[in-house]
Amino acid sequence: MNEVTQESMDKALEAINADMGALWIVLAGILVFFMQAGFTLVEVGFTRSKNTGNIIMKNLMDLAIGSLLFWAVGYGIMYGSDLVLGGLFRSSPTDQGYFFFSATDWYNLFFQTVFCATAATIVSGAVAERTKFSTYLILSAVLTTLIYPISGSWYWPFDDDAWLNTAGFIDFAGSSVVHAVGGGAALVAAIMVGPRIGKYVDGEVKAIPGHNMLLGSLGVFILWLGWFGFNGGSQLAWGGDDTIAAGSVIINTNLSAAIGAIAALFMTWLRYGKPDLSMTLNGALAGLVGITAGCGAVNAWGAIAIGLVCGLAVVLSIELLDKKLKIDDPVGAISVHGTCGFLGTVLVGVFALDGGLLYGGGASLLWVQTYGSLAYILWAAFGTFVVLFILKKTIGLRVSKQDEIEGLDLTEHGLEAYPEHISNDK
Amino acid sequence: MNEVTQESMDKALEAINADMGALWIVLAGILVFFMQAGFTLVEVGFTRSKNTGNIIMKNLMDLAIGSLLFWAVGYGIMYGSDLVLGGLFRSSPTDQGYFFFSATDWYNLFFQTVFCATAATIVSGAVAERTKFSTYLILSAVLTTLIYPISGSWYWPFDDDAWLNTAGFIDFAGSSVVHAVGGGAALVAAIMVGPRIGKYVDGEVKAIPGHNMLLGSLGVFILWLGWFGFNGGSQLAWGGDDTIAAGSVIINTNLSAAIGAIAALFMTWLRYGKPDLSMTLNGALAGLVGITAGCGAVNAWGAIAIGLVCGLAVVLSIELLDKKLKIDDPVGAISVHGTCGFLGTVLVGVFALDGGLLYGGGASLLWVQTYGSLAYILWAAFGTFVVLFILKKTIGLRVSKQDEIEGLDLTEHGLEAYPEHISNDK
Amino acid sequence: MNEVTQESMDKALEAINADMGALWIVLAGILVFFMQAGFTLVEVGFTRSKNTGNIIMKNLMDLAIGSLLFWAVGYGIMYGSDLVLGGLFRSSPTDQGYFFFSATDWYNLFFQTVFCATAATIVSGAVAERTKFSTYLILSAVLTTLIYPISGSWYWPFDDDAWLNTAGFIDFAGSSVVHAVGGGAALVAAIMVGPRIGKYVDGEVKAIPGHNMLLGSLGVFILWLGWFGFNGGSQLAWGGDDTIAAGSVIINTNLSAAIGAIAALFMTWLRYGKPDLSMTLNGALAGLVGITAGCGAVNAWGAIAIGLVCGLAVVLSIELLDKKLKIDDPVGAISVHGTCGFLGTVLVGVFALDGGLLYGGGASLLWVQTYGSLAYILWAAFGTFVVLFILKKTIGLRVSKQDEIEGLDLTEHGLEAYPEHISNDK
Repeated sequence: MNEVTQESMDKALEAINADMGALWIVLAGILVFFMQAGFTLVEVGFTRSKNTGNIIMKNLMDLAIGSLLFWAVGYGIMYGSDLVLGGLFRSSPTDQGYFFFSATDWYNLFFQTVFCATAATIVSGAVAERTKFSTYLILSAVLTTLIYPISGSWYWPFDDDAWLNTAGFIDFAGSSVVHAVGGGAALVAAIMVGPRIGKYVDGEVKAIPGHNMLLGSLGVFILWLGWFGFNGGSQLAWGGDDTIAAGSVIINTNLSAAIGAIAALFMTWLRYGKPDLSMTLNGALAGLVGITAGCGAVNAWGAIAIGLVCGLAVVLSIELLDKKLKIDDPVGAISVHGTCGFLGTVLVGVFALDGGLLYGGGASLLWVQTYGSLAYILWAAFGTFVVLFILKKTIGLRVSKQDEIEGLDLTEHGLEAYPEHISNDK
Repeated sequence: MNEVTQESMDKALEAINADMGALWIVLAGILVFFMQAGFTLVEVGFTRSKNTGNIIMKNLMDLAIGSLLFWAVGYGIMYGSDLVLGGLFRSSPTDQGYFFFSATDWYNLFFQTVFCATAATIVSGAVAERTKFSTYLILSAVLTTLIYPISGSWYWPFDDDAWLNTAGFIDFAGSSVVHAVGGGAALVAAIMVGPRIGKYVDGEVKAIPGHNMLLGSLGVFILWLGWFGFNGGSQLAWGGDDTIAAGSVIINTNLSAAIGAIAALFMTWLRYGKPDLSMTLNGALAGLVGITAGCGAVNAWGAIAIGLVCGLAVVLSIELLDKKLKIDDPVGAISVHGTCGFLGTVLVGVFALDGGLLYGGGASLLWVQTYGSLAYILWAAFGTFVVLFILKKTIGLRVSKQDEIEGLDLTEHGLEAYPEHISNDK
Repeated sequence: MNEVTQESMDKALEAINADMGALWIVLAGILVFFMQAGFTLVEVGFTRSKNTGNIIMKNLMDLAIGSLLFWAVGYGIMYGSDLVLGGLFRSSPTDQGYFFFSATDWYNLFFQTVFCATAATIVSGAVAERTKFSTYLILSAVLTTLIYPISGSWYWPFDDDAWLNTAGFIDFAGSSVVHAVGGGAALVAAIMVGPRIGKYVDGEVKAIPGHNMLLGSLGVFILWLGWFGFNGGSQLAWGGDDTIAAGSVIINTNLSAAIGAIAALFMTWLRYGKPDLSMTLNGALAGLVGITAGCGAVNAWGAIAIGLVCGLAVVLSIELLDKKLKIDDPVGAISVHGTCGFLGTVLVGVFALDGGLLYGGGASLLWVQTYGSLAYILWAAFGTFVVLFILKKTIGLRVSKQDEIEGLDLTEHGLEAYPEHISNDK
């Protein structure tokens, strides 16, 4: 007879838990992958039909170029074991297999790749309808190869060398690491590229309605769906306490999105006299972005509070940028991902069950959350500024006025997205 | 040496099975969540473009409001341990954590929440294009907080206090608990709101074609997809016999949908001379709704029989409501969810391998299935009637004639869903 | 005390691994199911609006009829234990439960069913806009019942009786078994049905643009998504080494799709002066089809090489068929699935880590891959020819000229897909 020792059984159980974790991470990554389709639909739906194909191309290339470059370079910069420039970023020894990834934990590479592509895609909406395609491709490549992985390395390796990790920063699934980085890049890019022709005329602010609210809405449904993978998968494990934790993350995510949508709906009902669809959709996204940092640290009440704040804030932020600051962001990406990414991160300092202001933790977590999030935004803004400054001096940022008026589909891609349909605005 | 006892290993294996079950339930819940997008596309595609945004808003709010209220109230009413009013519904002691849910089985809350939202959304299609948005929101809130959870408590806690459970009722994933409830509510709502302007003119029945059959069809594909989670996830476990059972459920679901679509296709080919797309789509949905009760109780032949009956019945039911009863249901929701939910539940009494008429079980199961399903329909009809009666006497059910003709997008939301496109019917 | 033996624990662990495997296979199958929606969107988007409903009907019926017939007949022919006609195809003894499937491994039936439906659907795009609906239904039925299962039996049972398996052929997820079979059938069907009216006029090649590039693109995103299930699920297991292998498959799949899209983008940029959207989309699909055979046999560099070759080849193949050979394939299905299915299979002979030319394996694998893939293509071409030859002599292949000009929606289904929209081409 050959009896089993406790050690041997523990090892077997650990292996099974690792396999279940990998299964969850892969499936969550597939859900996050789907968010690329969601972003594409939102951006296309909220802009004019004459730029449809261009937006699709940008999103498709964020994914394609990002997948290659993050595999080749980005992952090693973000997760490698060697510190470079005092921890500004990382490098990976050859036997670690993180550059031109060849380690065995492929599911981690997959999950992180789709996150990286998400960060890049956020910029796409903010600079839609006037940016040169070649310029965008270069910015997207630098974002996925350098800007995102460098600041990602400050926290997500979750080790002692990650300065924001040791500082006690909490950003479970990336309100700052992903969304505020995308939002910060989007802010600088939208300013540097400048508003679309016809947006600000003689001091007046003109609305430029998107051409398909149904597909924009389908995009939001897909994003909401994908976010269960985005946040839930960030548990990075399944089994026992991890199962309970991931379940709570998913509920928090759903509640925050729900209250975000409701908050924006009623706020616009009060302010404009009618419940506004596009703001309600942005409210749902605001709740999702906002809860991303804290979904593992707060309870359902905290999730509702964060979603409520973000759902209201996104309306004000969109109005502020559009009407006061005159920064033209066709889809509200800066407000959704930047403003709410920042707010969501900071509010963890208030609502975290362990360390939050409201639970007797004092102001120290709040302070870390604030400067941590600002570090992400400023870094992304700085990196984007450098790239776009160089591109402005060389190949240029915008298409010609004539091309912009004709639409980027025709002029950049020789394409009509809907050749059969008569459109009013042509 | 430290050997492992059988008891200790059994416990470890049980924990792993529970974790696998939770993983399946969460992923199935995410698939069911996606059905909200499917319903939205079906309803929008089958109606006119001028009401697109309004339908999206309604579906989005079913999900948002339903998520909040089912978390706060509904789950406790449906699954709590205390009986109220002799078992009419339930309540939950504080330490159970079912009101303002805080128990550890979050995945169950998630799965049940998306089911609840499904029931509410069914009504949306039947009252499309003429109902006041505020009225709809209130009805949706009552449905998700009270009507659905109360009748849900009669069966799905699967314990001795659930009267339909003790009676031997079989409704695996909710042909009655979810779909016939939605269908019963939809029937009453469609009657009380009344037909759309232009539907019945001088005794003539006018067809009002939907504006985008492609997106309606995409919606059906998404619903079919989501149904694998809806039915398969209702196994509520994974591992060993549960794996085999869930696999059989998924195959039954697919076969029933397939034959439902084929049946409707050939029936319309025979009746109208041409195979009809919208009926074929409804045939697939009919097969899905029909098999939902019995997918765990019948074999593949039973699934095919049920799908066949439902695929034929849905065509007749839609014709009957539209042409004879003159109940205006723009998307066929009453027939798909009500008629086929009822039929599918009853047919379990015929085809169930254990207790079905065809397998020597006599008529007793058939009888339970019939009165159980009727109980659900009548309850939902009654509850909806009370809510809408009160709303009719107060804020009203319908928008003004002028608003209905202009479209609810413009008048209820100040919105054009497709601002660039010229439409024939404006 | 009751100690656990090693044997008993091993058995328990094996059961858990089987359950995890089944979970992965079911979920992967659900992702593959979703590809039906992706194919529908691609085909509809790349063709004219007047045939929208007809294409939806065809894809829906591929799924519905395929689900029924593969359950009833196809699975037994493909996986049964008895050889028929010296191994040309198989049969299944009653107690095996493979005809009218009733075995316990339902998840395998489910996974194989959605693969079968995929093969059938490939043909739909190539014969779009001019083929009789009844003719298409019969071809689809024969494909799913006979043509696909027969050649599938040559390899995928992975046993000693499958001649291509014993020959050492490698086709992990079906570059040949599924895609080249679909492509070969599509080639013959497109030739026999002939080009659309207006495609080749007086020796000139006319472009017939599709009507909705956004939905076509959404289709490609969905296909890319579904391919993670298509290829990853073909590991047919989860746990331990299978987890690592499936993860690598998923990364290879993603990298190949990415480089395929990039390759097509830059190639069209160079050739046409502008980066072309539809070719870029086909480039992504080409990379996906190409890597399907070798995703479990090559490393990331091999995946990139295969994706690169296929992304370039698909552009040349589409041009060749369209302009030189004058074979009218509205969506490029023959090039994507046929050409790249063949190339991807053959290139395994170059890049396979075990046996590939580049890794010192000599030419023997290359040779097996080449004749194996050709066997699939020729078989599918032959089978399709026989079916269509008979149909041509009986009910005919094409609709009348008048019907084709009016559109198949109106003439075959009495339907307008977008009744509100004015279209230029009517």
